[in-house]
Amino acid sequence: MLFIMNKKAIVLLSGGLDSATTLYYALNEGYSVEALVFDYGQKHKREIRCAQALARVAGVPAFKVKIALPWRGSSLLDPGIKVPDKGVRKNTIPSTYVPARNIIFVSFAASCAEAVGARTVFIGANAVDYSGYPDCRPEFFSAFQKALDAGLKAGVEHRGIRICTPLLKLSKAGIVRLGTRLGVPFEKTWSCYNGEGVPCGVCDSCRLRAGGFKEAGVRDPLVKN
Amino acid sequence: MLFIMNKKAIVLLSGGLDSATTLYYALNEGYSVEALVFDYGQKHKREIRCAQALARVAGVPAFKVKIALPWRGSSLLDPGIKVPDKGVRKNTIPSTYVPARNIIFVSFAASCAEAVGARTVFIGANAVDYSGYPDCRPEFFSAFQKALDAGLKAGVEHRGIRICTPLLKLSKAGIVRLGTRLGVPFEKTWSCYNGEGVPCGVCDSCRLRAGGFKEAGVRDPLVKN
Repeated sequence: MLFIMNKKAIVLLSGGLDSATTLYYALNEGYSVEALVFDYGQKHKREIRCAQALARVAGVPAFKVKIALPWRGSSLLDPGIKVPDKGVRKNTIPSTYVPARNIIFVSFAASCAEAVGARTVFIGANAVDYSGYPDCRPEFFSAFQKALDAGLKAGVEHRGIRICTPLLKLSKAGIVRLGTRLGVPFEKTWSCYNGEGVPCGVCDSCRLRAGGFKEAGVRDPLVKN
Repeated sequence: MLFIMNKKAIVLLSGGLDSATTLYYALNEGYSVEALVFDYGQKHKREIRCAQALARVAGVPAFKVKIALPWRGSSLLDPGIKVPDKGVRKNTIPSTYVPARNIIFVSFAASCAEAVGARTVFIGANAVDYSGYPDCRPEFFSAFQKALDAGLKAGVEHRGIRICTPLLKLSKAGIVRLGTRLGVPFEKTWSCYNGEGVPCGVCDSCRLRAGGFKEAGVRDPLVKN
């Protein structure tokens, strides 16, 4: 019997280190990929252009989805609130938190997956060296998977759409090592929350990235020596 | 001790009979409401204008959210696919199904709720006289509630955001009766999937609505005698 597995996938691509590594992971696993790139009003618009450039280099189509909502209170969105620069604090959700961001992203991705006949959604969420966002944790993804199984036609018809989080339990150094092995063009990624030019080096995202590269013994091409 | 309950709520307002009744239900329960209206590429654009008019009449602010995605295959979105007109079939998901529509809507609403400090999201989903969409069923909402509890800051901090589905187990006639009692301006609602002018009378949505008004013994002001 000839069994052809459905290898179509949607990859959520933010343009950062983690989502870029996830894209290359999915391609390396043999998936035929379409990337979803969100413009959700983030101040660091540069990551959107990086995501599109990454998709081009990897040879996958990228759909840009623009979301405008009356979000308030997040330092990632609000020009009036400074992004924290004092270091990552464990067990605290920082002001960069955007309400339900991953919940919205994976909802869109699941919809898109069902519409194009893909069975897998990849997201580069990480719950080890991360900023404490609740929708990056394994307990969220496991609960959300059940909601998809109950709420999607594909779920009811028992084929289902699977949320795949290959980086969830890796350290940042582990992600850098995996990305290096997979040939991720790190120079095309962007992690800094502070927008344009050179990475600020002091926001949580820069600190987590720097720690990962240092521990992995890999040079970050975005950081000048 | 003075205990002031948080009575801010987000109501998902499509402009149809069910969401209009839900809006009036929430107001009648004493909630201070903000409405979310989605332009998701539906062919029946008239419902968007009806939703905005309903919000105006009810005196609540309405935010319109526009979503553009490469959705294919739904007769509610695709001009090339005719909306079915042969009657509602039990235990079948019709071609009007839009992948993950309610999943996306409640995700946005939860985000919005958290951003504005509301604790409740109302959605007029109904799983009795309905079109068989999986994300209208109690099992979906119960699973999604758990995903929100795990994924939202409010969930982690044990205040939580509650998805409230007051119509979930009502018949369509029950919804018409409830709406009548609450003073819902039915003449400002729109249920027909076929767009403009007068309701077609033969799409699933028109049939379900007509059945509800008939059984409740109430005249539908949209239908000329």
